[in-house]
Amino acid sequence: MADLAAPSLPVGPIGIVGLGLIGGSLGLDLQARGRVVRALVHREATAERARARGLATVVSTDGALLADCVLVVLALPLDRLLEPPPDLVAALPQRAVITDVGSVKQPVLACWRELHPRFVASHPMAGTALAGVEAGLAGLFAGRPWVATPEADTDPAALAAVQALAELLGAKWIRCGAIEHDRSVALISHLPVLASAALLTNADRAGAASGLSLLVRTLASSGFADTTRVGGGNPQLGTLMARCNREAVQAALGSYRQQIEHIEQLLQQGDWPALQQLLEQASALRPEFVASLS
Amino acid sequence: MADLAAPSLPVGPIGIVGLGLIGGSLGLDLQARGRVVRALVHREATAERARARGLATVVSTDGALLADCVLVVLALPLDRLLEPPPDLVAALPQRAVITDVGSVKQPVLACWRELHPRFVASHPMAGTALAGVEAGLAGLFAGRPWVATPEADTDPAALAAVQALAELLGAKWIRCGAIEHDRSVALISHLPVLASAALLTNADRAGAASGLSLLVRTLASSGFADTTRVGGGNPQLGTLMARCNREAVQAALGSYRQQIEHIEQLLQQGDWPALQQLLEQASALRPEFVASLS
Repeated sequence: MADLAAPSLPVGPIGIVGLGLIGGSLGLDLQARGRVVRALVHREATAERARARGLATVVSTDGALLADCVLVVLALPLDRLLEPPPDLVAALPQRAVITDVGSVKQPVLACWRELHPRFVASHPMAGTALAGVEAGLAGLFAGRPWVATPEADTDPAALAAVQALAELLGAKWIRCGAIEHDRSVALISHLPVLASAALLTNADRAGAASGLSLLVRTLASSGFADTTRVGGGNPQLGTLMARCNREAVQAALGSYRQQIEHIEQLLQQGDWPALQQLLEQASALRPEFVASLS
Repeated sequence: MADLAAPSLPVGPIGIVGLGLIGGSLGLDLQARGRVVRALVHREATAERARARGLATVVSTDGALLADCVLVVLALPLDRLLEPPPDLVAALPQRAVITDVGSVKQPVLACWRELHPRFVASHPMAGTALAGVEAGLAGLFAGRPWVATPEADTDPAALAAVQALAELLGAKWIRCGAIEHDRSVALISHLPVLASAALLTNADRAGAASGLSLLVRTLASSGFADTTRVGGGNPQLGTLMARCNREAVQAALGSYRQQIEHIEQLLQQGDWPALQQLLEQASALRPEFVASLS
């Protein structure tokens, strides 16, 4: 007997709006699984490059190509997602399932719950250091979380379709509230970007203030490289995350600053057993967070 | 014509005290270059394991094996280096060059400048996540900085011998003052350990306070793994660094906390252009620090 409860992806073309890292990777994976992919991009130059890379079955700058899509993924940067052009909204078929890939969910829902009846807010948590039409790569979503943040009135069949999409690509399906999502990513994604950037600007400024500009650069090791990787990433993306998730990022920054102050106090007091205990806690915590990653 | 100014390593056996990551790696590399290596370890069980791994030509728990060494590397943890057992000091030949590998230089000099006339403070900046007799590996020092912090009365021939050792192993030789070294490593090595550990403890505590303990663990991604790698490292080593480099680490923590407060203010004010500028600075700075590493 078929499992009637299993989520299924509707038959028909799948639309992707935007062919950056996420959109391009989706296009490659979906075609590899035999799906027809229709991709809408902003510029003709991007369309030509996307065609050359085979990121979709059809690539166009004309929203009309989305007309018969059964599911459309809005793979746009947060700022464009939160101020969608009216012709994009008009081009989305009313019966299609619409989902997004934005890294903050409350403002996306606040905007899109009014714009489309079958919108499902989602966030595939896959990334690389790359962006743009050259960035998309096959297999990006395999084993990575794909979070959906449905509301009480989210269409259950639309939610099931997005779940089927995520599972088709090998992602780990997770459901939670938008507030919970946004607070969590503030702690494990957005704050680390800012804390990591602050390590770089602090090493530069405090180094220069001590006349050590060259020496700090010469002595930086693989540990500094690891710790500053996300802080040296895309500045626009980092700013958008902070702007769109402002409240949660402020809270995360505040509690982080208190942790730093606590460590300052331990050094001030020379309380080495307590410092070692804190570092032992950190060491024990890390595998709980990143066991499958490092 | 021979270059009379080229630093040279004296002919004769080289001693290593301690066969952890640094000592064991030294032993492997020196033997690969045809040198006789005599290693002193604390426990017979370690000696047996070191012999099985071929970390030195001779391994003993008896300091007498150092008697005819021309150069001895003290590859000990900072706490043991700063409180050396009298029998170790007595076992060091007075005519040999003595150097260390400690990651903080002022206290090492304060201790050892009194203990041996040919002591040279040095710090090969190579590391992995591993420690102990199983950690040593060939080629660890190639391309990595090897910092010496000579004083006015450091024996020039002893300094040249340590330089020759570093260059024999392919390391990048750097000379600077002990104060400058300690301030620099506070900014690019010791502070990042504490800032990274604070990201872990903050994600745990703030996550739990919001009822998100499981979700923050599930959503942590490769960026969180990178940013927390050094903070999840050896707690004893992290504590020793902070304790032995207390003043510089306190200063680094203080200026870092001010950077975090500055970012908090930018979010409070909603000054997104200034935040983007800060992240652009961080992005531009990173290659200056880690161009050869990432």
